[in-house]
Amino acid sequence: MENFIYYTPTKIFFGKKQEEKLGEILESYSVKKVLFHYGQGSIKKSGLYDSILRQFKAYKINFVELGGVSPNPKLSLVLEGIKLCKQEKVDLILAVGGGSVIDSAKSIAVGAKVDFNPWLFQTQEKTPIDHIPVGVILTIAAAGSDMSNSCVITNDLTSEKRGFTSEENRCLFAILNPELTYTVSPYQTACGIVDILMHTLERYFSLGEDTPLTDSIALGLMKSVIEAGKIVMKDPQNYNARATILWANSLSHNGLTGCGRDFIMSVHQLEHEISGMFDSVAHGAGLAVLWPAWARKAYKASINRFKRFAYEVMGIPSTDNSEADILKGIDALQQFFKEIGMPTTLRELNIDESAIPTLAFNAMFKGKRVLKDIITVDYDTAIEILESIK
Amino acid sequence: MENFIYYTPTKIFFGKKQEEKLGEILESYSVKKVLFHYGQGSIKKSGLYDSILRQFKAYKINFVELGGVSPNPKLSLVLEGIKLCKQEKVDLILAVGGGSVIDSAKSIAVGAKVDFNPWLFQTQEKTPIDHIPVGVILTIAAAGSDMSNSCVITNDLTSEKRGFTSEENRCLFAILNPELTYTVSPYQTACGIVDILMHTLERYFSLGEDTPLTDSIALGLMKSVIEAGKIVMKDPQNYNARATILWANSLSHNGLTGCGRDFIMSVHQLEHEISGMFDSVAHGAGLAVLWPAWARKAYKASINRFKRFAYEVMGIPSTDNSEADILKGIDALQQFFKEIGMPTTLRELNIDESAIPTLAFNAMFKGKRVLKDIITVDYDTAIEILESIK
Repeated sequence: MENFIYYTPTKIFFGKKQEEKLGEILESYSVKKVLFHYGQGSIKKSGLYDSILRQFKAYKINFVELGGVSPNPKLSLVLEGIKLCKQEKVDLILAVGGGSVIDSAKSIAVGAKVDFNPWLFQTQEKTPIDHIPVGVILTIAAAGSDMSNSCVITNDLTSEKRGFTSEENRCLFAILNPELTYTVSPYQTACGIVDILMHTLERYFSLGEDTPLTDSIALGLMKSVIEAGKIVMKDPQNYNARATILWANSLSHNGLTGCGRDFIMSVHQLEHEISGMFDSVAHGAGLAVLWPAWARKAYKASINRFKRFAYEVMGIPSTDNSEADILKGIDALQQFFKEIGMPTTLRELNIDESAIPTLAFNAMFKGKRVLKDIITVDYDTAIEILESIK
Repeated sequence: MENFIYYTPTKIFFGKKQEEKLGEILESYSVKKVLFHYGQGSIKKSGLYDSILRQFKAYKINFVELGGVSPNPKLSLVLEGIKLCKQEKVDLILAVGGGSVIDSAKSIAVGAKVDFNPWLFQTQEKTPIDHIPVGVILTIAAAGSDMSNSCVITNDLTSEKRGFTSEENRCLFAILNPELTYTVSPYQTACGIVDILMHTLERYFSLGEDTPLTDSIALGLMKSVIEAGKIVMKDPQNYNARATILWANSLSHNGLTGCGRDFIMSVHQLEHEISGMFDSVAHGAGLAVLWPAWARKAYKASINRFKRFAYEVMGIPSTDNSEADILKGIDALQQFFKEIGMPTTLRELNIDESAIPTLAFNAMFKGKRVLKDIITVDYDTAIEILESIK
């Protein structure tokens, strides 16, 4: 078991009507001026926007507004947010939406404390040492950004999508009401389920066999998410299934499912190139296409862990041919992805195979890195993986 | 699923040699003056005491010392600690030891911020609103107090042992090195294993069937602890098994295994009377005696959960007679307790049956409460439970 630091300071308010506590929560932190940050305006249709404004008024909290966050959140809007925070002396950024809004808020939060372009945090040329506190009302279960220490931003100029981790990226609080996710479209719900699964899957499929407690949590979480996923696709307003997925969203990426493990999340790194280069690709959909291809290439390097996954998560009956069992486990996960409406090829993502060399080259940071996990993904392996799903 | 607040701000430094980071950690929090709080002096034999003093010196941190915390930590020492903190303007209490030392430190931490007897927090007549930060170097895996929001203290005058929960009881940081637990005696190791199991067991056996994610984490944690427990009893210096138990110590009582559940921990409440009244009784040993008796009385009220426990944690093969399977599951846990050296009767705890009426009466707060969970434990039920294990 590797040494680790576990730090999840974000206070979670989970359950029905918790968003109605916003004013009270802001008051408890003595917040005076908020940057109210959100996406494409769905919160205006749902009534959440009005409820928040009512609470700002009731608790005498000043605010400035910055909507318009897009999927794969853009550096240009982050720079606008930073300018607003500095001008208006904002003391909390309230992110209302999904992972894109939260990551945009996190980037503004660290960027507002420095006088250089926060893209340097994404490229890891600079390390943040301070941030404006970020509060969250989550409306999509997917990225787990509400409790994670990561922040992924896309540079509009270069189409590069880069994530960095830092304890400065931890949110102060997050309000999670499963009912707020009832209206997420089936496709986005499915993308979220994939993303949640993948955050744990990529921690689980890493080197080492000596973390039984972390493994049992990881396997249990993945099984719970798949079971709940099947339910919500048929019954989008099933509270308990939405609640399971929403809570898994947080636990899957807050560090818990990787304690004591050494992991780098290769498939996430590959996917960032795809959705960075092709803005219409949802992160979860990209992951759904990539992971089975990576797994079929990687399983021989981690037979025991792939066996447990096949038996305990996917419910494959154990036979004498454990390699066949493993492949059935991978197939079963891909089949689940299909069932919930996820693609299985690049073509289904509207990506032509001519893009493969560029994707592979960019994923290796233009030749500057390889992805070393249970297998090493270099340029050639990336090409092989992408060719197998073209 | 019930609404819940999840808040685990304690920063965990887990792994080999992490205690050598103490000075650096204290410096990162700008600590100037420490109350160095510990137990019966085992840390002097192990060399930990000297290592801490060296770090205080190297990082120019002032300190006052208060050793002597006993198992079932006493109010009288807490009052001494409060006096010291007020006189010396302490800005962090460093608890080095197990749950007793941490709970003593927590009680001092909230007591130093008020001008009344902190016993009023234990009896829930007062609610704390501030505390001195508490840091921990943990040397015994058991109570989970390093990450929990609870604090249990015994009133020397009345022999009453009372716990209260509050977010003011969360520690700032905790250093967890499994190697520091190598020298814990087999008996204390076993008591710790029982305590850890019981923190999750009592959250799991509560009302409701709609928390699959929390349940999967709870079941996996209990299974991991039992497997690791068998290993450490034979091989006390097995790093990975000690690490599993130590990490489970924290996760089992930080809130994670009860998210969305409504629980009151009846068996813990009963046990507090036993170890409050009989100071020689270790909390874990008392729990090991009580739980099987409570479970045999309670299982009919929660058949599904007891079935999963029998099958998934205790590995009982499923038959047509699920009630028999459940009883085998309870027997198997009791057998595990025996194997690791735990008692099964009050007599083995040196408690005469003549004490039963008083224990039951006190457990009902002298007639002021009943323990209402999947079954209701009132005075008569408490008598029945205690009689069955006399």
